[in-house]
Formats: sequence, structure tokens, C-alpha cells
Amino acid sequence: MKKETYDLLEGYMLCSMADSAHDAEHVYRVLYNALQIAQGESVDRDVLIAACLLHDIGRKEQLEDPAKCHAQVGSQKARAFLKGQSFDEAFIEQVCHCIETHRFRKNNQPQTIEAKILFDADKLDVTGALGIARTLMYKGNITEPIYTKNPDGSICDGSGDASASFFREYKFKLEKLYGRFYTDRGAALAQERKAAAEAFYESLYREVSRGYDAGKQLLDSQLEK
Amino acid sequence: MKKETYDLLEGYMLCSMADSAHDAEHVYRVLYNALQIAQGESVDRDVLIAACLLHDIGRKEQLEDPAKCHAQVGSQKARAFLKGQSFDEAFIEQVCHCIETHRFRKNNQPQTIEAKILFDADKLDVTGALGIARTLMYKGNITEPIYTKNPDGSICDGSGDASASFFREYKFKLEKLYGRFYTDRGAALAQERKAAAEAFYESLYREVSRGYDAGKQLLDSQLEK
Repeated sequence: MKKETYDLLEGYMLCSMADSAHDAEHVYRVLYNALQIAQGESVDRDVLIAACLLHDIGRKEQLEDPAKCHAQVGSQKARAFLKGQSFDEAFIEQVCHCIETHRFRKNNQPQTIEAKILFDADKLDVTGALGIARTLMYKGNITEPIYTKNPDGSICDGSGDASASFFREYKFKLEKLYGRFYTDRGAALAQERKAAAEAFYESLYREVSRGYDAGKQLLDSQLEK
Repeated sequence: MKKETYDLLEGYMLCSMADSAHDAEHVYRVLYNALQIAQGESVDRDVLIAACLLHDIGRKEQLEDPAKCHAQVGSQKARAFLKGQSFDEAFIEQVCHCIETHRFRKNNQPQTIEAKILFDADKLDVTGALGIARTLMYKGNITEPIYTKNPDGSICDGSGDASASFFREYKFKLEKLYGRFYTDRGAALAQERKAAAEAFYESLYREVSRGYDAGKQLLDSQLEK
């Protein structure tokens, strides 16, 4: 890819980013993940680079109206932008297929190798310590709690929680990601990061629940009814 | 402590809480930490329980005006509230000393055993995985990034960073907490949690910096200048 083409796409990406969990740094990490996954593979790297840079440009629209899908909106915006810049028609279609299918959807899965690599590169950014950190920052941003409590006052571990929390997000989403990669290289990179995420969840749950169990007993013994 | 006194203090605490890093759950964890630290010690538990419940009631004022100190404001609010409820004068002074000195301040350190225990119980909630989680949520809430970058594009590790980030907070604050406890029991509980925080920081830094180093090289090799 020509440096000036990269700069053009990067510039459009930078003026389209929305929330802090999906900022420009997320886009660079996804691009770097994708290039690592693509190593040694027969891949159109220009398509891949363009798709990575533009994959989240529909986030702002989804944030403002949750009924909208950022993958669909992003694909439409990318098509309009690339047409306006006179990119080749076949190139545009390949890039837009990647963007449209980078989100978990049963009936709209990535078909090309470039689309599969973008999907995996994006999911890789929700694995390991990075996935934990991004999820916690997002929860802080929308003011959801780390954990919720059962009616008896004990700490919910996330697996059967009725309302939203970091623990529920970990159990319902983060923990289940590792089996959902399309490429062997993406799956291998995810596996390398898995232990860090598991260890963090377990430490956090242990710290909170041990403190509660011991502390509540001590408090009860202090209170005269 | 009478259950109705506890309920009165808890009620006042619940209507005074402000941000999500210092919510009611933080107060309960501090209370439970304090009761664990106090085990086997000669401590006025009524003073300790009241001080724990009321220690952060000045947070809202500090959030609205950062020139205000939540420990000082909290102590003034607690004094007015407890006087209005006809608590004993000596009890009020003991509780207010704990609240006023629970924050890191060279010239206003905790003098009584109850004040030292509140200080340690509060700091314990910034150690380990809990400290990491609360700090990340707070950074997400005020939209600060996980890391910043050096002029050459490499990732800052937090130790010499010019601007605010989670990595800087870890290196300047979280990492240095463990030597600053007043009680042996508080220091021991903190040490138990230290490894989880260190492991998380190291995994996160490794994931981010490895991805950048490898990815940037691959990108440079793709761009025609």
C-alpha cells in the first residue's frame, strides 16, 4: 500500500472514532494483530490494512442509536468514502465484506481470508489482560459495577447474575471467546493470553468474596439486635 | 453497636455516596477489612464501625470542587450529623479523627489505633486485583487511556510518562502502596494480594508492547514510501 493511501484511510478513521474502549489505539492494535496473523499467508494486505483501519467507523452511530449495527453502518460509510476517493470497485467490495462481517453474527459470517483475519484480530483485543482492562474501563464509563450480590448478601460470581456487572460480562462473553477464532494463528495468539485473564478473574473474585464472608460474620457478631 | 445505630449511620452513608470507584460497596469492603484487621486487637469497635461507614461522605464535595479535601469535608459533615443525633462528644471526636486522617497526608497522620485501622482498611481496597479493577473503572469513567506512547511510537510503561494513563497510575501509586501500612495485619493482607496486581500489570504491558513492536515492523514493510 502506498504511504499516502494509508495516511488517507488513517485520517478518515481518526475523525470517526467514538468511545474509549474503541478508540484509535484499539484500531492500531487490531491492525498490528491482523498483520501478525497474516504472516506467511496468501492475503491481499491492502484490503486487510484498509479493512482494519475502517472497521469501527460506524461505532459513533451505534452509540447514538443502539438499534443500529456498527458493522453495517461502518461498511456503508466505508463504501461511500472509498467510492468518493475513486478506489477500485472490486477492492471496495472486499474491504466492505470484511467490515460488515467482523461482528459476531450467525447469519453474516466472514467468507474471505481477509475478513476472517479482521474478525480474529478484533476478537484478540478482547482476550487476555487487554480484554479485562478494556472491559473494566467500559464498565466504568457506563457506571456498571464490578459485581452484584445475591439476596443472602453473598457475591455473585457472574455465571447466573440477573443484572449487568463486570463479572457477568466475563462469564458470558470474555471467558467464551477463546474457542471462536477462524484462523489457527489467531486462536494460538488468544491461547497465549488466556491464563492472564483467568488468573485475574479468579484473584478478583477471591479477594471480594473472602472479604465479604469473613467481614459479614465479624460485623454480625458486633451488632446487638 | 446497636443494630439501629448501625442502620442510622448506614442510611446516612448511602445517601452521601458519589462516584463508582467510591460507591457503597467500597464502604462495605473497607468496613469488612477493618473488622478483620481489628481481630484480636484492643479496639473501640463502635468508633471503628462508625468511622468506616462515614469515611467517604465528603467525596461528592471533592468531586464537585477538587480544591476541597474529602477527608476534611467528611469529618465536618460527620461531626454535624453525629451531634444532631446526640452522640457522645468523645465518641464524635474519635470518629472524626479517623475520617480526617484516612487520606495520605504527611502532616495529618492517624494517631489512634482506630484511625490507623481505617487508613489500612481503605488502602487495602486499592491493592491486588481489586485495586487494578477499581482504578481501570475510574480511568474509564474520566476517559483516560490505558497507556500513552513515546515520540518514537513505542509504549510508555508508566514509570516516566508525561501524561495521565492507567500505567502511570500503577507505577506512581498502586505499586508503591504495599510499604505504607500502619498495622502488621493490614500489611500482611496487602502482601497476599500483591502478586495478582503485579502479574496483571506485566501481562498487560507485555501484550500491548509485543503487539506494537511486531505489528509496526510488519506495517512499515508493507508501505511504499
